[in-house]
Amino acid sequence: MMKYSKLMQKCINLAKKANGKNMPNPFVGAIVYDEEKKEIISSGYHKKYGEAHAEVNAIKNANGNTIGKTILVSLEPCSHYGKTPPCTDLIIKSGFKKCIIAMLDPNKKASGGAEILKNAGIEVVEGILEKEARELNKVFLKNILFKKPYVMLKTATTLDGKIALLNGKSKWITNEKARLKVQKLRSKYQAIMSASGTILADNPKLNVRLKNKTSPIRIIFDPNNKIPLNYNVFNNDARVILINNSKLELPKHIEQLNFDGNFDKLFKELFMMGICSIMVEAGCGFNSELIKADEIDEINHFIAPKIFGDGLNFVSGLNYNEINDSIQLKNIKVEQIEDNLLINGKIKIY
Amino acid sequence: MMKYSKLMQKCINLAKKANGKNMPNPFVGAIVYDEEKKEIISSGYHKKYGEAHAEVNAIKNANGNTIGKTILVSLEPCSHYGKTPPCTDLIIKSGFKKCIIAMLDPNKKASGGAEILKNAGIEVVEGILEKEARELNKVFLKNILFKKPYVMLKTATTLDGKIALLNGKSKWITNEKARLKVQKLRSKYQAIMSASGTILADNPKLNVRLKNKTSPIRIIFDPNNKIPLNYNVFNNDARVILINNSKLELPKHIEQLNFDGNFDKLFKELFMMGICSIMVEAGCGFNSELIKADEIDEINHFIAPKIFGDGLNFVSGLNYNEINDSIQLKNIKVEQIEDNLLINGKIKIY
Repeated sequence: MMKYSKLMQKCINLAKKANGKNMPNPFVGAIVYDEEKKEIISSGYHKKYGEAHAEVNAIKNANGNTIGKTILVSLEPCSHYGKTPPCTDLIIKSGFKKCIIAMLDPNKKASGGAEILKNAGIEVVEGILEKEARELNKVFLKNILFKKPYVMLKTATTLDGKIALLNGKSKWITNEKARLKVQKLRSKYQAIMSASGTILADNPKLNVRLKNKTSPIRIIFDPNNKIPLNYNVFNNDARVILINNSKLELPKHIEQLNFDGNFDKLFKELFMMGICSIMVEAGCGFNSELIKADEIDEINHFIAPKIFGDGLNFVSGLNYNEINDSIQLKNIKVEQIEDNLLINGKIKIY
Repeated sequence: MMKYSKLMQKCINLAKKANGKNMPNPFVGAIVYDEEKKEIISSGYHKKYGEAHAEVNAIKNANGNTIGKTILVSLEPCSHYGKTPPCTDLIIKSGFKKCIIAMLDPNKKASGGAEILKNAGIEVVEGILEKEARELNKVFLKNILFKKPYVMLKTATTLDGKIALLNGKSKWITNEKARLKVQKLRSKYQAIMSASGTILADNPKLNVRLKNKTSPIRIIFDPNNKIPLNYNVFNNDARVILINNSKLELPKHIEQLNFDGNFDKLFKELFMMGICSIMVEAGCGFNSELIKADEIDEINHFIAPKIFGDGLNFVSGLNYNEINDSIQLKNIKVEQIEDNLLINGKIKIY
């Protein structure tokens, strides 16, 4: 028999093929498996928000060969009428003997599927590659559990932790390939968030300059109304959410949000506006405010092997009495990009 | 035919087996090769200072089968009477047709061997894996070319470049395996150098706590005579060189050097005292002085995925107007040690 973890890995790989078109729905993959013949009968994944769930696609592709078989799904089958009917009904109706699930559905409305299947006499195994499935759906989990967008902070420093020389120069610390990698990261997030300091200094476009990629929504943090409206980030290339407290009228493509100092409230409002995932690219001030407010989920930190000695820090104003109280990144992944490094780590794991 | 670069790599690997016993001589490996039969006849390396050179060992192991053959050596064969007679004589006498050399000898006394072989009608090919051979003998090259020890700086910081919390706490930033790696690095250098700030703060032993490894010589930089003689670094476990300006009498195992602010002169004096290679483990002040004085050849920089926000820097007091003027490490190598990283880079390449 093929191990369930190997099959579940295939479900996860399949799920990724949706490439974000599933959002704000989770990534889900499913496989119909014949345990006697030790072979995969069919597979499917959730391709697009509003369209068929992974289980429905896998079962359709099985062409009726489901009775007494096993179905593996990377997320607990749904039990409710949403945009589509409950998958539990279809699984029961299809005569499956066993259902293997990576993780339970954190969405209260849709959950309970495993229980329904068990009550219908189907053997249910939970928790196969649960960690991997939760990583796959980190954005969905954050969204469902906290009603806030998933927030990834991108930083880039020298070996001695500087984001710029004392005179402010920062072009370029990282190499060309590392900067291309930043473009790729941007394309994976629904929105890019930056703050007035960076925008006034660099007048960036915050777009994605890759073929066939649409630029993300821009979220501009400017609580003191400093950025003139003729700056690049306010152009009409993509939706803009401007966080300021100005009473001036704004162009149509710019939505306004006020800020009263409460980041938790701000991110909840952004989620209400449909923002599921955010990549933050800003300077020391805003980075530090978000870290202090405990709003960062993940960090992608680039390091260039330079030494500035003195210069600007990427974060400041935190102060711990004990090393164990400081921020500790988890699940570290490292990628060498020519002479640069990319360190990926989680501040929170969902 | 086996490629010369493959054979030369074998010479380099052989050379490494000396494991430092060759010091202050270079690491050298040699192979006697039969180009017609496409096979290695014999090999040898310079095992120990004062003993036979690599070529002598390889030729001895060939048992007379050298006429018309090729000899590969990772360093130009010597042409002078040192502790042993010139290798060029033996190569000519042995009837070799060809001699393949990775790098020329930077030591004026011993160099000129390639020319002598050519004049004797032997075909000489130079520069095969030269970069690798120079890396292998970086300490020897620095010693011969500058009459100074090779200096490697070891640093360890958080992701935001801090070596300690603001309150000075630094135990421990890196994980256990990374700290074991530091012990291994120490065992590869002839001397450990540290300065009063670190020693007064931590009272370290600066020894190697690994089986079958002798602790390195300790070089203590204390120009203002601050460290009391009962500190751990002054114990009798290893030779101590104390750089201070005190007129007090010192115990026998402690040698004294005075310091007048000139690091170039200091390192030349250390070399005269037989110090070929130094690993520096100190704080921000001394690190920065050595970097400013341009005395660091190589850096091993550990990174722990923590964020302190505020804290002590590993270097400060440098200030550049342009990014291109800042220190740029070359030949970057990265090693992941559980959730820690080790970044190795060269400031100077010899």
